[in-house]
Amino acid sequence: MTRGFYIGRFQPFHDGHYSVVERIADDVDELVLGIGSADDSHTVRNPFTAGERIMMITKSVVDDDLVTYAVPIEDLERNSVWVSHVQSMCPDFDVAYSNNPLVIQLFREAGIEVRQSPMFNREVLEGSEVRERMIHGDDWESLVPAPVVEVVGEINGIERIQMVSDSDSNGG
Amino acid sequence: MTRGFYIGRFQPFHDGHYSVVERIADDVDELVLGIGSADDSHTVRNPFTAGERIMMITKSVVDDDLVTYAVPIEDLERNSVWVSHVQSMCPDFDVAYSNNPLVIQLFREAGIEVRQSPMFNREVLEGSEVRERMIHGDDWESLVPAPVVEVVGEINGIERIQMVSDSDSNGG
Amino acid sequence: MTRGFYIGRFQPFHDGHYSVVERIADDVDELVLGIGSADDSHTVRNPFTAGERIMMITKSVVDDDLVTYAVPIEDLERNSVWVSHVQSMCPDFDVAYSNNPLVIQLFREAGIEVRQSPMFNREVLEGSEVRERMIHGDDWESLVPAPVVEVVGEINGIERIQMVSDSDSNGG
Amino acid sequence: MTRGFYIGRFQPFHDGHYSVVERIADDVDELVLGIGSADDSHTVRNPFTAGERIMMITKSVVDDDLVTYAVPIEDLERNSVWVSHVQSMCPDFDVAYSNNPLVIQLFREAGIEVRQSPMFNREVLEGSEVRERMIHGDDWESLVPAPVVEVVGEINGIERIQMVSDSDSNGG
Amino acid sequence: MTRGFYIGRFQPFHDGHYSVVERIADDVDELVLGIGSADDSHTVRNPFTAGERIMMITKSVVDDDLVTYAVPIEDLERNSVWVSHVQSMCPDFDVAYSNNPLVIQLFREAGIEVRQSPMFNREVLEGSEVRERMIHGDDWESLVPAPVVEVVGEINGIERIQMVSDSDSNGG
Amino acid sequence: MTRGFYIGRFQPFHDGHYSVVERIADDVDELVLGIGSADDSHTVRNPFTAGERIMMITKSVVDDDLVTYAVPIEDLERNSVWVSHVQSMCPDFDVAYSNNPLVIQLFREAGIEVRQSPMFNREVLEGSEVRERMIHGDDWESLVPAPVVEVVGEINGIERIQMVSDSDSNGG
Repeated sequence: MTRGFYIGRFQPFHDGHYSVVERIADDVDELVLGIGSADDSHTVRNPFTAGERIMMITKSVVDDDLVTYAVPIEDLERNSVWVSHVQSMCPDFDVAYSNNPLVIQLFREAGIEVRQSPMFNREVLEGSEVRERMIHGDDWESLVPAPVVEVVGEINGIERIQMVSDSDSNGG
Repeated sequence: MTRGFYIGRFQPFHDGHYSVVERIADDVDELVLGIGSADDSHTVRNPFTAGERIMMITKSVVDDDLVTYAVPIEDLERNSVWVSHVQSMCPDFDVAYSNNPLVIQLFREAGIEVRQSPMFNREVLEGSEVRERMIHGDDWESLVPAPVVEVVGEINGIERIQMVSDSDSNGG
Repeated sequence: MTRGFYIGRFQPFHDGHYSVVERIADDVDELVLGIGSADDSHTVRNPFTAGERIMMITKSVVDDDLVTYAVPIEDLERNSVWVSHVQSMCPDFDVAYSNNPLVIQLFREAGIEVRQSPMFNREVLEGSEVRERMIHGDDWESLVPAPVVEVVGEINGIERIQMVSDSDSNGG
Repeated sequence: MTRGFYIGRFQPFHDGHYSVVERIADDVDELVLGIGSADDSHTVRNPFTAGERIMMITKSVVDDDLVTYAVPIEDLERNSVWVSHVQSMCPDFDVAYSNNPLVIQLFREAGIEVRQSPMFNREVLEGSEVRERMIHGDDWESLVPAPVVEVVGEINGIERIQMVSDSDSNGG
Repeated sequence: MTRGFYIGRFQPFHDGHYSVVERIADDVDELVLGIGSADDSHTVRNPFTAGERIMMITKSVVDDDLVTYAVPIEDLERNSVWVSHVQSMCPDFDVAYSNNPLVIQLFREAGIEVRQSPMFNREVLEGSEVRERMIHGDDWESLVPAPVVEVVGEINGIERIQMVSDSDSNGG
Repeated sequence: MTRGFYIGRFQPFHDGHYSVVERIADDVDELVLGIGSADDSHTVRNPFTAGERIMMITKSVVDDDLVTYAVPIEDLERNSVWVSHVQSMCPDFDVAYSNNPLVIQLFREAGIEVRQSPMFNREVLEGSEVRERMIHGDDWESLVPAPVVEVVGEINGIERIQMVSDSDSNGG
């Protein structure tokens, strides 16, 4: 049995993330999806709460054969203990998937196998693209799985991201 | 669609917890299991990490029809914001299940419905009983679902709780 | 112009506290009332929020001639920086009033004048007495200023302290 | 009886803030002034401590008929619990006044009434203008209430902001 | 070259600690002394600041041949990341010395060699004994290296521990 | 006996820092080197852990006559208590050396003597220069003491800083 780990902020979970999950599914039996910056929300970069992101992910992968765990990971703001923090919050995993150089470096220094692939880049690029489209009222729905459209609708997510994009501090 | 919320420390997940889950399953379509004190581990009261507890819970309820989410909840040490913290980390829920008076009071002040039942008491009592038996080498396996026995075995959990039960501070 | 500083948890603000304020009023022109453990609430030892305690204090001293400031002080959990923390949160003061040995020691090491008096002991004793009476349904109203009775009534404070007195942990 | 809530960083409290307070005074009987980023000081953006800002505010509004409470609010760095945090630190309020989109969004999601007005913009603009003038030795005194000039003088505030404006990190 | 790690709270550094250091000196070329609970002070259990403890340790071992590093370790309150935290704060070490079961368990789970010895028990016992004698005015000087007597004298340490032993909370 | 205090991030310790230490050695008998941002690492601005920086400093000054203490100082993110925090972590000192305007201001407000000198500027400038050269594979070795080259080599520091320079967030 092999269990993989894939971390992202998933703001929101989009087709780029979904492709990565499908690609990892060929390698592993189970997959832990770590939801980074879980304690951040209501900002342009992190508009959705951890709970909202759990919904997006779980509903998007529910029909796959892969056993998945969506686990919120709060920021500790200390790179030197980040790997231990992730390990304590997640089911034990054998291999981590990432294209983020800091994540790769931290896992490698801790002696954990990391796999990367150029296709992961699509995931990083699409995150800010989706949020930009949400803010400007453009078509973002075509870039995400259908259940994500539903979740964003239920929580009035477009109104939220448009409001906070017009703000830069708490209390001015 | 109704979604319920049930919080515990699940140290470990035992038959009392499982009975509560089965009982709630009659009421709701989906259930969020909040794993309290997620950031604590390696103590007599909280021997297992959040990741280990996610494993215990997920594997114990996998064959039920109920859709479940196991979500670690880190302590914030501020009762006044605890409900908001839980809500931000979890999928949205309609009703909370608890017999803990503080939890009940906090949810009620926030205007959230809470349901309780005398049978929940079994859950509280069994937690410390299971840990005591682990420490003293007595039969604890009969008090927990079979997958919990497996998880505790894989992580050498008995050795861990026996070691830390003999300690009371970091660095003496 | 002399400004004094008097710190307490004020759980709740009672006649013992009020007597101390009256006594200090003879010495100073203005008084800062520091509300300690401001981030704690909904426990037996600290049932009321900082905001509720601000109301109790402000309404109890409103008719005095003394200019007062009620300032919440969150715990930093570091004695070595506590005096600097208090100073940064409060209007500048010339003398501190306390009978708490730790508070006295910290202010003295920082070179700040501290005044104490045996009558302050009444304040410490009455705090737990009032809370005990609240929990057991005995007469607590006679031990506090009238506005405190009103505030506790508006927030259903008796129900709250009775509930949490029956609990000892978040999530059992 | 109606109580309002108005949050700002008040770095420093200036005529724009004072106009807003006067305008709110027509609507409410009492006003809570929340001092945001209370734990920050000695930076260009937040030069003054919470205690210094309490002094500026209290002395500027002392002759108004309005009952006011100046309450420091420390940053929690979690938007999702920010409203609960504010509510626990402040006397209970019925309506919030803000022109900050994030603040408006957070209060609305919590079901709290928010009122805004174009005139509030003056307050935001003047904050950085006053600090710029302080740094460059220009006339800032004409933009703030007279008691603020006094407080800044007593604490050597101009020297402080000029020093820190020349720095960008603690310990280089 | 072998470097060892020895953690304690060193409240204060006493002859039991010194014996342990001498014993370890036979095994290693360099020794890191981790000062635990570095952020705590002014309590009965942790009367001295990290800086004061650095002085006690450094002056007590200055004439030994062993190369030593005295490193304050602040508490993180998360056992699961504690080893990573220690490793990031300290020069790299090959072996840890401890008789504390929690410390032993945490290092072992991280794959780090731990050595223990019954004689270490003396160190644990003497810590509270020295503090009790300081509080009651008995002979504590005979239980510590001479430089520790000097440091405690310079900081008026006896007055401090006697004061705080008479207190149990910040602000009563 | 005079003891000085000199704070820097020492990322890494380079010849500019070393010149400052030599210059201070003329004034004082002992010197505390405070390692700022001790909890940060694995970023472009702060690539090395506190433990790695302790090694660099200690080995670079070992042959000087000056008695030195290398003390990690974790960030507290509160300027108003920063001086107290530094004082609690370090052996008591008589005079601080800095050219950082914020540090100078904070020490002065606390009544501590600060000495500055134009030559200190070299230290600030060289820090980012050394890191830039490390990232781009240019000659950085000529700007640092020989033991720093060794430490960076042992920890594969160049690979680390090159990796993280290509990243801007944890989990993208």
